[in-house]
Amino acid sequence: MKISELSRRTGVPVASIKYFLRQGLLPAGRATSATISEYGDEHAQRLRLIKALTTLGGLSIAATRDVLGAVDQADTSEGALGAVSYALPVPVAAQGGAGPEEDDGATPAAAAEVAELLTALDWQAPGTSPHVQGLTTALRELRRLDAQYGPGELAAYARLAEGVARLDLERAAVLEDPVALAERAVIVFAICAPVFELLRRLAQEDQVRRRLTGDGAGGAAPRS
Amino acid sequence: MKISELSRRTGVPVASIKYFLRQGLLPAGRATSATISEYGDEHAQRLRLIKALTTLGGLSIAATRDVLGAVDQADTSEGALGAVSYALPVPVAAQGGAGPEEDDGATPAAAAEVAELLTALDWQAPGTSPHVQGLTTALRELRRLDAQYGPGELAAYARLAEGVARLDLERAAVLEDPVALAERAVIVFAICAPVFELLRRLAQEDQVRRRLTGDGAGGAAPRS
Repeated sequence: MKISELSRRTGVPVASIKYFLRQGLLPAGRATSATISEYGDEHAQRLRLIKALTTLGGLSIAATRDVLGAVDQADTSEGALGAVSYALPVPVAAQGGAGPEEDDGATPAAAAEVAELLTALDWQAPGTSPHVQGLTTALRELRRLDAQYGPGELAAYARLAEGVARLDLERAAVLEDPVALAERAVIVFAICAPVFELLRRLAQEDQVRRRLTGDGAGGAAPRS
Repeated sequence: MKISELSRRTGVPVASIKYFLRQGLLPAGRATSATISEYGDEHAQRLRLIKALTTLGGLSIAATRDVLGAVDQADTSEGALGAVSYALPVPVAAQGGAGPEEDDGATPAAAAEVAELLTALDWQAPGTSPHVQGLTTALRELRRLDAQYGPGELAAYARLAEGVARLDLERAAVLEDPVALAERAVIVFAICAPVFELLRRLAQEDQVRRRLTGDGAGGAAPRS
């Protein structure tokens, strides 16, 4: 198909397609003349993934290039899942308080908290994982705010997070083709994250309302 | 105390304190001369809350003013909790796809999905709630991506979100004084949200690793 048809089919403007071509996000088409190229279904699929990453996932062009490169190098579905997971930006941990250069004891305490958690849950993640590092930073800043988690609190959250991750994987891993699966994983990992956060906020709202009206049925007491 | 002492005690630079005073975020001190004012503990506490909102919560000055105004008007702990919850920015829902003006059937379908969910879970939230509206927008965009949740999937996520919200409320609602509680609620609602997201990403990473290595012990099968 010509670039105009590619634009029509994907809803991405021609100028944007040309920009993605120049930025190396989209492979060049097959040149049929000096000014005309032919594009295939693989271009349309790649464009939908670029659109999902940049528009819905909110990724920069550089971050999008990283994700696409990781997906291209993955030769299995699990590899593609892992690549997307590592390439997506780590959620912004709490920032501020004392600078990281100040050794106030919060850094080793937070690192120990993360290590203990991983051991207790038997979660496999190396110290180089961006998620381990992000969690360590977040817990360090909470300690500096004197708002650290109490004994068992972090593990209680982690057990619920494990349940959410299990649902995520079930939603993402239904496809065999690594590229199609990567597109799905981007949607589930990056775009559905706010959905869970909204559900959490809705549940908070419900529980605050019940406290206000004195209706404890769904408040502090577990209902499930 | 003088402004220099207020700065020293809170770690907020004098120039920033003056900026917050000009912006009306911090009440004026008691003038003891034409150029010198006296500040009290309530100023230090308010400054810590402003710092938490702007630096750690990432709120704009305008959004911070909204939260502070809501906290000041709340006369109960539950009121302060609700005020903070409503005043904090709604998590960014998926944006993009067709414009909201295009009536493609996704909007009513998403609205019906949210209404059914609230009924099924017996969650109390009015249609005017920013969380109801945010969730409706997110589900509409997922429908346009042909990535909507299957039957029961959203409810499964919502049950886990309810558990997270219960932990949140337990962490937040330990204080009686509305302003102290509001400070705590900001930390729990706004700053700890990335912690859960990091735990979810870590759990995803663990489960992907187990699939890659063929170690199913913690993969698809529930462990708890």
